Amino acid sequence: MVSPSVSSSITARLEVQARPTAVSELTTAIEKAGGIVTALDVTASGHEQMTVDVTCATRGEQHAADIVEALKGLHGVVVERVSDRTFLMHIGGKLSIESKVPLRNRDDLSMAYTPGVARVCEAIAAHPEDARRLTIKRNTIAVVTDGTAVLGLGNIGPLASLPVMEGKAVLFKRFAGIDAFPIALDTADVDQIVETICAIAPVFAGINLEDISAPRCFEIERRLRERLDIPVFHDDQHGTAIVVVAALTNALKVVKKDLATVRIVLSGAGAAGTAVLKLLLAAGAKDVVVADIQGVVRADRPGLDESMFWTASMTNPRGISGSIPDALRDADVFIGVSAPDVITGDDVATMAKDAIVFALANPRPEVDPDDAARHAAVVGTGRSDFANQINNVLAFPGVFRGLLDAQSHRITSAMLLAAAYALASVVTDDELNPTYIVPSVFNPEVTTVVAAAVTKAAQTPVEV
Amino acid sequence: MVSPSVSSSITARLEVQARPTAVSELTTAIEKAGGIVTALDVTASGHEQMTVDVTCATRGEQHAADIVEALKGLHGVVVERVSDRTFLMHIGGKLSIESKVPLRNRDDLSMAYTPGVARVCEAIAAHPEDARRLTIKRNTIAVVTDGTAVLGLGNIGPLASLPVMEGKAVLFKRFAGIDAFPIALDTADVDQIVETICAIAPVFAGINLEDISAPRCFEIERRLRERLDIPVFHDDQHGTAIVVVAALTNALKVVKKDLATVRIVLSGAGAAGTAVLKLLLAAGAKDVVVADIQGVVRADRPGLDESMFWTASMTNPRGISGSIPDALRDADVFIGVSAPDVITGDDVATMAKDAIVFALANPRPEVDPDDAARHAAVVGTGRSDFANQINNVLAFPGVFRGLLDAQSHRITSAMLLAAAYALASVVTDDELNPTYIVPSVFNPEVTTVVAAAVTKAAQTPVEV
Repeated sequence: MVSPSVSSSITARLEVQARPTAVSELTTAIEKAGGIVTALDVTASGHEQMTVDVTCATRGEQHAADIVEALKGLHGVVVERVSDRTFLMHIGGKLSIESKVPLRNRDDLSMAYTPGVARVCEAIAAHPEDARRLTIKRNTIAVVTDGTAVLGLGNIGPLASLPVMEGKAVLFKRFAGIDAFPIALDTADVDQIVETICAIAPVFAGINLEDISAPRCFEIERRLRERLDIPVFHDDQHGTAIVVVAALTNALKVVKKDLATVRIVLSGAGAAGTAVLKLLLAAGAKDVVVADIQGVVRADRPGLDESMFWTASMTNPRGISGSIPDALRDADVFIGVSAPDVITGDDVATMAKDAIVFALANPRPEVDPDDAARHAAVVGTGRSDFANQINNVLAFPGVFRGLLDAQSHRITSAMLLAAAYALASVVTDDELNPTYIVPSVFNPEVTTVVAAAVTKAAQTPVEV
Repeated sequence: MVSPSVSSSITARLEVQARPTAVSELTTAIEKAGGIVTALDVTASGHEQMTVDVTCATRGEQHAADIVEALKGLHGVVVERVSDRTFLMHIGGKLSIESKVPLRNRDDLSMAYTPGVARVCEAIAAHPEDARRLTIKRNTIAVVTDGTAVLGLGNIGPLASLPVMEGKAVLFKRFAGIDAFPIALDTADVDQIVETICAIAPVFAGINLEDISAPRCFEIERRLRERLDIPVFHDDQHGTAIVVVAALTNALKVVKKDLATVRIVLSGAGAAGTAVLKLLLAAGAKDVVVADIQGVVRADRPGLDESMFWTASMTNPRGISGSIPDALRDADVFIGVSAPDVITGDDVATMAKDAIVFALANPRPEVDPDDAARHAAVVGTGRSDFANQINNVLAFPGVFRGLLDAQSHRITSAMLLAAAYALASVVTDDELNPTYIVPSVFNPEVTTVVAAAVTKAAQTPVEV
């Protein structure tokens, strides 16, 4: 059973009879019902009655309802109102657009707007590259989705995807000082998505694609990169790939193995899986077996699309076949970017000595991390309640900070790899251990180190 | 000759010999060259030398260069650096996107982003109208242009239009608390503009079209209004129309004439002219003659497009023909939304007694306002350096504030007219006089009064 989470916190306003045990009765009732009290305020008090706001973490909506029922059952307690902290935080949305210039009087107006602004427009018309100096293009990116693959929720459409896109923009600001604006597209047509993003591109210095389903996301990214002169980065692909390669780099250090010789099994051949594969190969991995729900991806499997055929051609040097557990025998590394409960602890037991297991499906991983840890040397998940959280937040802010600082027109595998190695380097040799292979997302070094590496890679001439 | 303007201010950093007359020599030189010193700071000083930053208003770039030359010609003065206040203000752009929620720790992250955000997404998927409550859609609009008709600069393209669009967003924030984001489209194709705006619409609660050339702007607005469930407002059209009708309402009060009986000559049949005509007719004007560079618009004029033919059919009840000066004889009102120097003071002299002249071409009006004022009872322009500035800033912030407050899905002529009358009402009978027919843009009542009127009109059921 999952633990109560503050992300499912409720605040209940209660009218309570003023008797000595009133408060302890409340907290006891909540704790008995499985909630965790995180705050309690008496907001008004009289001789007979008092008003109490109690906030508690719950396991979700049904559990919250059960807790409210338990409170209602207490003698002398009236539940006035129940609010949900997460919903309260979302009221009116999570972003605002602010002016950086004062408009106190007509003089200010004449510089920020007409007539003064005309000279700035003319300067940009004469030298278009000045838009990066004299407009918000300097520090602004779009977070673009079509709402087809939002979190684990699937195709929920553009409107319902907005809280995630706004959240992403909040992260860009918090971790990298980037102005990110959410664009949720009311179309799932590849041609129309490409045309729309190209049409709105002028104000942006980068495009972060988000939660667009595979295989459409590959074509959209490829075509946008061909047409636009700003970097296009699909975070579900490359953000994941960067953090996985960073984590694997450090995990291999822990177990003293070499990427070029380890056997890797990759579960998942979608957006994230394909990008992880590409970056692993770019980093020097030689023996990767990719598998999905139908088993190992092989060139002789019927019905492979273009992307899957490429995957087959680049992997499985030993020509193995079968299911994921079959592939796992004697493997050094398991990387799951797929679905819950794909393997068991017993499967992990068949892996080579000092195995590494990254089970990144969220919220339920490919294998129970406690089960995996009984047999593997290093275990990572996508969850915040286990050690080694392999989280895209470690990558995308720094990557875009670096791209913007370099005023880069593109993004290359060399930059992604530089980001991965930079992220790995934030964990020092003294800090490194099986439960600390990636830094905390709140480590302020993460963004600066990743950004510097990306900027440097962006400024390095490309070999022809 | 135009006066020096702060919108063309420069700041010069000078190394100056430390002698008693040093500072007065600087200011004298600038004033002799026609500049106006607005600030002077000694930023460093020694026994022999001092560093002086002097800021002065100029008449434009050539004049600024002349002033710098004059400073260079002074004995013992070295010009270190010259910066332009307007350009300085624009560095990095004029907007930022800020987070409204704190991200101090993992608890905050779990509410603003995964896993908590998923519940908010699910709530919107179940009840799409909740997007207006739980996302930035509540208070966010797009300022959209294709860069084809920017200020008086013409078709300068999307990048060069950005400073204006950002400026507009700054005004929306300053005057109405609205979060406005600039979208500059890299296409001038009507179909593609319509498709693009429809595709990006989900995050927005309104679309402000800006600086799109006529007649394309009419079709774009019409098609967007048909397809979108949020209001679409082309400010060059309707913002102008609202302020003109408001100003005319008050000007007619000053001269004690009635809109239903006055003769009006409207110079300009483009975006603004057509919208002004429509709103004048909606307000009850009966005798409007529209003219452009080819003279009076009549149904028998060859080559009329659809919009112009409509104009001809709705105007000119007395069937007059000829040029604008011909039409002006005995007219009560001249409204120019066209080009500089279309008429002369002598033409104004042929108008009826107590004539009203609005000459709104910017920066050079249809008639010199001083010349016009010798013969007309009320004169208004688009410029800030004459009385009665008829400025769209008086309308668009309040209009959108009202639309957003009402969560309106559309905008109607009734709302535009309500906005015009509300704006006129901000000038009280006690304040009203020939040089004060519209309030100052910095009058805080303007937005609230206009917004309340628009909200009320939006909530009034439409007659079928």
